[in-house]
Amino acid sequence: MERIYLDNNATTIVDPKVFQVMEPYFVQMYGNPNSLHSFGSEVKPALAQAMEQLYAGINASDEDDIIVNSCATEGNNTVIMSAYYDLIRNGDKNHIITSSVEHPAVGETCRFLESLGVEVTYLPVNQEGIVSVEDVKAAITPRTALASIMWANNETGMIFPIKEIAYACRNRGVLFHTDAVQAIGKLQVNVQDVPVDYLTFSAHKFHGPKGVGGLYIREGVPMVPLLHGGEHMGGLRSGTVNVAGMVGMGMAMELAVENLGYEIREVRRLRDKLEDALLALPDIIVVGSRSQRTPNTILASIRGVEGEALIWDLNRHGIAVSTGSACASESLEANPIISAIGADKDLAHTGVRFSLSRFTTEQEIDKVIALLPKVIGRLRDISSTYATPGPACQMPEPQ
Amino acid sequence: MERIYLDNNATTIVDPKVFQVMEPYFVQMYGNPNSLHSFGSEVKPALAQAMEQLYAGINASDEDDIIVNSCATEGNNTVIMSAYYDLIRNGDKNHIITSSVEHPAVGETCRFLESLGVEVTYLPVNQEGIVSVEDVKAAITPRTALASIMWANNETGMIFPIKEIAYACRNRGVLFHTDAVQAIGKLQVNVQDVPVDYLTFSAHKFHGPKGVGGLYIREGVPMVPLLHGGEHMGGLRSGTVNVAGMVGMGMAMELAVENLGYEIREVRRLRDKLEDALLALPDIIVVGSRSQRTPNTILASIRGVEGEALIWDLNRHGIAVSTGSACASESLEANPIISAIGADKDLAHTGVRFSLSRFTTEQEIDKVIALLPKVIGRLRDISSTYATPGPACQMPEPQ
Ligand SMILES: Cc1ncc(COP(=O)(O)O)c(C=O)c1O
Ligand SMILES: Cc1ncc(COP(=O)(O)O)c(C=O)c1O
Repeated sequence: MERIYLDNNATTIVDPKVFQVMEPYFVQMYGNPNSLHSFGSEVKPALAQAMEQLYAGINASDEDDIIVNSCATEGNNTVIMSAYYDLIRNGDKNHIITSSVEHPAVGETCRFLESLGVEVTYLPVNQEGIVSVEDVKAAITPRTALASIMWANNETGMIFPIKEIAYACRNRGVLFHTDAVQAIGKLQVNVQDVPVDYLTFSAHKFHGPKGVGGLYIREGVPMVPLLHGGEHMGGLRSGTVNVAGMVGMGMAMELAVENLGYEIREVRRLRDKLEDALLALPDIIVVGSRSQRTPNTILASIRGVEGEALIWDLNRHGIAVSTGSACASESLEANPIISAIGADKDLAHTGVRFSLSRFTTEQEIDKVIALLPKVIGRLRDISSTYATPGPACQMPEPQ
Repeated sequence: MERIYLDNNATTIVDPKVFQVMEPYFVQMYGNPNSLHSFGSEVKPALAQAMEQLYAGINASDEDDIIVNSCATEGNNTVIMSAYYDLIRNGDKNHIITSSVEHPAVGETCRFLESLGVEVTYLPVNQEGIVSVEDVKAAITPRTALASIMWANNETGMIFPIKEIAYACRNRGVLFHTDAVQAIGKLQVNVQDVPVDYLTFSAHKFHGPKGVGGLYIREGVPMVPLLHGGEHMGGLRSGTVNVAGMVGMGMAMELAVENLGYEIREVRRLRDKLEDALLALPDIIVVGSRSQRTPNTILASIRGVEGEALIWDLNRHGIAVSTGSACASESLEANPIISAIGADKDLAHTGVRFSLSRFTTEQEIDKVIALLPKVIGRLRDISSTYATPGPACQMPEPQ
């Protein structure tokens, strides 16, 4: 059976071009770049090129830092703990601002800081699933060390007003971090245009390998390393450099930028086609307006259908979708976004996320479109809660 | 030119058998193991097998934990910061014991804790480069939270009395961590026989890939995660699992155990052959007795020859050796071990490390042996400090 992968917000296929540039750095060129001999020096040009690809990808300036680490979870933890050590434990700040819909890599780190006595404000999202600039401004106090608000949400694809939030923070002397994991390759990410202080990304979300990520640090911004040791990455992230991973991430970044036009045009067209087909069925809503969403994502709520049940059914047909964050999916919890946007309780478990990529084909989308009415119909037939097309739904219609 | 790699304590070639098992997990089987669909579930058997290989490799019990992370630097930081959060910040302890010759991933983390007010004892090494059990016992106070002493040293290969130290700690209620990076694949590492509480390793030191490591945690021992987030690794290490890396590390561990006999017999024989040839030259000493050293390592001090100069000369002939830790090598600092063992100042910059592996051949060693007298002779000829064979050296002769 030909399988169809529509779970690209969880992880992506490694682009064959990415794997191709990584391949020599396992068995052939295995040196440690910190070594003085030829085995060490021969890997350096590829690392330098990867760095250039990363800098170019987000339009960082030469004076800024980008540190290569193991994933966005590490990057997010690094930024938040750095603010803690630098400004809270050794300074006079005591407050961090974040949103209620961040990835757990931000949310759980904030909760850890709460256990250390730090005050954390978790800003709500509106019915579109977006944090408002006004809420950020209102939350800032003289003791605020850091605000951490994601660029785009992993479950809904909703794009947050990061530029305005970044300026609001900068104007009030608050450091600003954005988790851009779901933005790279889907949106223009330009740190000259958007004055973030820190920005995290993870290669495997944009067709790079798992186990490698990046953290952008604007020039002059403080950074207390999370990993102490042999002073790799200019002392900001110790640990022997993952050469193959870094080379792969560099290429993945270059390809993400190169394919951004295709993503915004063609991936969006396929996404919209799928979304239109979904919305043509009764009692289905999609979270958030298309214009404020990453081009590849649909979070749908299908009344009367448990998200997990639909996933299993689609999986039997070789189609991979998700209830939302892959992290949460094993625990089968209520989708926190569906709750956050204030939908009625019936819908809490009905979230299903379709996330496309540049590897998604029109035939694949057509197959899914053909199958969905049957699968949804069958699940509704056996549902104890769903009888006939229900009352007008309680959530805002997509515009 | 055929090159010869004798810097295996810095990093190792990825065994082709390791790369072979990793290869499918980039472009073909790219699912996130946390996903519910087939792309997620199809990678799970390989991850389960990798876990079994890791458990078997160090003889961990099913009740113990092994968490897969990004490197030993992360593992070392995790253990030390966990002791800090759990026992010092939230407890009544205030003291950590380590040695003066740990890798910076331990040493610098301890120094970071000193900046937070923690007391750290850095135990000296004796003239053989070894920490004594008596010194550990004498350093323990009622407020000691953790002792962290490496299993074998990366620069000298000297093996520390880890079993005795582990028992000494256990008997006094002190948690014990060992950095076993240089032990895996070179020595028997059996956590049933040696009651360590935590043990760290890094795949790229035993013919696995860079960017993945492991942390063993004995059953019932406390652990505060360093990376908070999506609750991967049973909540102990968040971040999307590096599937290819984990599968590779599992196979690398299996091969390390499988080849341990060869390492102890054949790699040691080649090492001894090279060492004998070195010692046949005048004014050369090797740190530490062979019987207490990992089978693959020689740290030699060659009077009148700057370590860096020898490295450059050998590199011109395609031979890769090191002055010691790859981390420190770029900074061209005095070798800390040569200083630690109390050698006279003249020798501080004369350290050169030869570290072999199971991929080292007898022809390679013979070529190096043939070349060394010429290269050393030439460097001594142009040396301003070395005239004729010097006075009896101030360091203990190897036994
Ligand atoms: C928005 C967001 N942030 C952070 C992460 C964490 O990425 P990783 O698991 O690679 O650390 C993810 C993905 O899981 C994500 O979607
Ligand atoms: C003894 C020891 N501990 C820790 C490390 C750190 O390993 P990594 O750089 O893979 O984190 C090394 C190697 O550099 C080492 O030799």
